[in-house]
Amino acid sequence: MNIYDIAKMANVSTATVSRVVNGSDKVSERTRKKVLAVIDKVGFTPNVFAQGMGLNTMHTVGILVPSISDLHMSMAVAYLEKGLGSYGYNCILGCSGFEKGQKQEHVEMLLSKHVDALVMVGSTYAGSGENVHDTDYIRDAAGRVPVFVINGNVHGENIYAAVNDDEKAVYDTVSAIVRRGRKKILFLTDSDSYSARKKQQGYEAALSDAGIPILGELKMHVKNDVEYVRDLLLQYHRLKFDAAMATEDKIAIGVLKYAAVKGISVPEEVSVVGYNNSEMARICEPELTSIDNHLDQLCQDTVERMIKVLNRDEKQADQVVGQKVTVPCSLVKRRTTDF
Amino acid sequence: MNIYDIAKMANVSTATVSRVVNGSDKVSERTRKKVLAVIDKVGFTPNVFAQGMGLNTMHTVGILVPSISDLHMSMAVAYLEKGLGSYGYNCILGCSGFEKGQKQEHVEMLLSKHVDALVMVGSTYAGSGENVHDTDYIRDAAGRVPVFVINGNVHGENIYAAVNDDEKAVYDTVSAIVRRGRKKILFLTDSDSYSARKKQQGYEAALSDAGIPILGELKMHVKNDVEYVRDLLLQYHRLKFDAAMATEDKIAIGVLKYAAVKGISVPEEVSVVGYNNSEMARICEPELTSIDNHLDQLCQDTVERMIKVLNRDEKQADQVVGQKVTVPCSLVKRRTTDF
Repeated sequence: MNIYDIAKMANVSTATVSRVVNGSDKVSERTRKKVLAVIDKVGFTPNVFAQGMGLNTMHTVGILVPSISDLHMSMAVAYLEKGLGSYGYNCILGCSGFEKGQKQEHVEMLLSKHVDALVMVGSTYAGSGENVHDTDYIRDAAGRVPVFVINGNVHGENIYAAVNDDEKAVYDTVSAIVRRGRKKILFLTDSDSYSARKKQQGYEAALSDAGIPILGELKMHVKNDVEYVRDLLLQYHRLKFDAAMATEDKIAIGVLKYAAVKGISVPEEVSVVGYNNSEMARICEPELTSIDNHLDQLCQDTVERMIKVLNRDEKQADQVVGQKVTVPCSLVKRRTTDF
Repeated sequence: MNIYDIAKMANVSTATVSRVVNGSDKVSERTRKKVLAVIDKVGFTPNVFAQGMGLNTMHTVGILVPSISDLHMSMAVAYLEKGLGSYGYNCILGCSGFEKGQKQEHVEMLLSKHVDALVMVGSTYAGSGENVHDTDYIRDAAGRVPVFVINGNVHGENIYAAVNDDEKAVYDTVSAIVRRGRKKILFLTDSDSYSARKKQQGYEAALSDAGIPILGELKMHVKNDVEYVRDLLLQYHRLKFDAAMATEDKIAIGVLKYAAVKGISVPEEVSVVGYNNSEMARICEPELTSIDNHLDQLCQDTVERMIKVLNRDEKQADQVVGQKVTVPCSLVKRRTTDF
């Protein structure tokens, strides 16, 4: 029972309930009585209810992203905010950057607001997967509220992960590129995260299974920035490649911009695949083939599992909600590939 | 004096201060003593300080956007979050949509979190400017905390606006298009907001001053969606135009996609200008000329004025900080125009 239920039962807005509880004089006497009657009926005293207007029981979820200016992250926040809103939850946003110390500080900040649960968006929170202590701060937080990690694989009690099958998605895509006779396939990434490593493993396995050598010079670590990638490839003028698999759409678009400058035809001479199937993929020319990680579904699954966890019987948590769900990716073919 | 100052003086993280104040056992005795010594020195008792760990004095600002999935809005939130963070403020995000009732509910929600100030991003909050009562809910909120509106012109005590000179920016741009001999200039917008109306006034004034008739069929109300705009123009096959001025980059990119389908050369046959100078403008082909509204500066100005208002002597507010600042736009010329 919360402010939304009271508002619904009294047939007024939550703002009106809030005004009544806070003693505002902007409410008619008739409305005031109606709202107080409902509050009385459901057994709240105005005073107890007024405490509920604070953060403790106000249904608030903390969302942590490394950067909200990244389109993929802002889409995730949009999906989460909408999904949680439909269950009457508000969101507090934290933008932590990528440094571990800052991540910890932001987790602490959100917990200090008495959030009911935490969502961490992005594989950066899961670290590289090499040192288990990289994610101790997440387990600490999970001692206080349920923690949901989107696109990061973190183990621990009260921690719930939603991940993609990134390795398989890249394996399948690179295999399809290879079947078109291409052998010099660039792999471009901007990250050392668990997810980025899985993508690279998929790339290497596909080449390996096709008997194509894995060359260090074809695995490039770049920035997630169109102009950076374009200019870097222009500098490496002796690098030859006939395809590019990127872990972000903007990196792939950098390859398209390079091809445009050099007069290289896409996909005839170089085929290009991006990742995330963002809006950018439909804006560039030619429009970009991209692996869709179904962010909407990752977020919606996270919201629904969170609601189950928050409404659970304490002891049955893991029976009701699995600690990890995997959402399969799918390839969206556009004009930059020929398979 | 707040948690950040205490942390700095004790040479520990805010998370550590929080743990000490909350009596966590994860802090060494030595650190605990150090932090308590600082708290003692500056005259806080842990108890009073612990209350400050809640929202009342925790330096929290509410940010309201209609939709965070819009790149321009998410950039604004990123700038605000970063700017406010540098002053030790956290942000609570609300995504209100475009309906008035929802806007009011979200304002009430943010106020219920005891925010120190409110920021509303986007001209939608200012209404169309036709009915002054459209913005009564903003004046209501301003009775409780200072309200900052970005890109919306709202009048009232304790309300501070940062706006662009949209009318002049469009007037200058359309005048430049006209000087290149073009006469059939589309005006495309997705909004009836105050800002959109100012842009349209700039468009009409430029045509009028050049003696070019203003035609209703050339003023189109569209969605801020690339494919929608492309398909709409493909349907209107009898509509002739030699330039397009759009109030959003994505609308302009829809025109580029239309031109690509029809084999119309840009800028030779049709020149195209977008608005906001977003990342999209550098991703499309040809790269888009766009009016830059300097969102970073709008946000930074807002943050700095807010800090002044929050630290002011109550009675001197409007002497310290003007209620309205205007940030001039500038045109970023790329490949879709010939002036």
